[in-house]
Amino acid sequence: MEILKRYITTQVQLSEEDLVAFCNLFTPRQVRRKSYLLQDGEICKFEAFVTNGCFRVYHSSPSGDEQVLYFATENWWVTDIDSFTNIRPSELNIEALEDSEVLLISKKDKELAYQQWPEIERLFRIMTQRALVALQRRMIDNLSKTADERYIDFMERYPGHYHRLSNVQIAAYLGISHEFVSKIRRKIARKN
Amino acid sequence: MEILKRYITTQVQLSEEDLVAFCNLFTPRQVRRKSYLLQDGEICKFEAFVTNGCFRVYHSSPSGDEQVLYFATENWWVTDIDSFTNIRPSELNIEALEDSEVLLISKKDKELAYQQWPEIERLFRIMTQRALVALQRRMIDNLSKTADERYIDFMERYPGHYHRLSNVQIAAYLGISHEFVSKIRRKIARKN
Repeated sequence: MEILKRYITTQVQLSEEDLVAFCNLFTPRQVRRKSYLLQDGEICKFEAFVTNGCFRVYHSSPSGDEQVLYFATENWWVTDIDSFTNIRPSELNIEALEDSEVLLISKKDKELAYQQWPEIERLFRIMTQRALVALQRRMIDNLSKTADERYIDFMERYPGHYHRLSNVQIAAYLGISHEFVSKIRRKIARKN
Repeated sequence: MEILKRYITTQVQLSEEDLVAFCNLFTPRQVRRKSYLLQDGEICKFEAFVTNGCFRVYHSSPSGDEQVLYFATENWWVTDIDSFTNIRPSELNIEALEDSEVLLISKKDKELAYQQWPEIERLFRIMTQRALVALQRRMIDNLSKTADERYIDFMERYPGHYHRLSNVQIAAYLGISHEFVSKIRRKIARKN
């Protein structure tokens, strides 16, 4: 819970009392490696704050191709915003890549928090804005950058996660083959 | 200005006095057909509410390929959220497809509104959430749906805009050739 408190105080101003009351709306959950927080077809009933571990949020096509939308590590939020907001079956999967810990808040409690604390409305306005910027950049990058450039951007976006993610995971994020990821990695290693 | 007032009252509760004060932060601008509200390389200094007309927000690749991110018509907001929020050169272009009218708000005035009215924070939190949902759906659809399905979704998303957008524009949104759009249109016409 301390991790969430620290995160919030870096984003918005909230009294200690309100901060504790807001954090008490969250429920901790342990998620074992290779387990799912959400599977496609389910309705996403939570917004999760990652306190430990790593998740991948991905879409699986009918033909079995997997495309990673993003990875979520410590201090990231993870949810299917579409399913959560509009109460519709999710098209995404959220899988733990390591033994992980999250704090979950329900839709009802989130609405309650909005009513009670304008600062929380601000927190989620800023957070949603950042998520929108990230997704827009990702979409533009897919259209305009080479795989090499996208790999370098990825490394900047997820610094220090190099050793946590396999070539297969990174490939599913970049939309290229894992052999091609190995090739880029070797090329960069040679340059350094 | 009445269009903006009507839009806001459908989204959040605000006293008449506050509503007028907020709307007074906007500046009207006429944009002629084929003129630009924003061109790539510029810093986006506004968030615009469309009161009349139609815009396309698109990315142009170095090779000259154009991909439409979205169209904005009456009651839509249009901006480059990344450039506007992070004060960085835009990678997008915003072009009027018809003679259009917008109401512009600056970053400074938007921040002022957030400080003054929690309801405006809510308005933009909800709006940003919707934009995020739309972009996420668009990304998933590109991965999982056929061009025919995406065309039908597009018609549902932009009802009544069929006659306002050329096959070339729709093709640049769907990421297919305009000949293919004509083919889908003929196929659907035969079915009806």
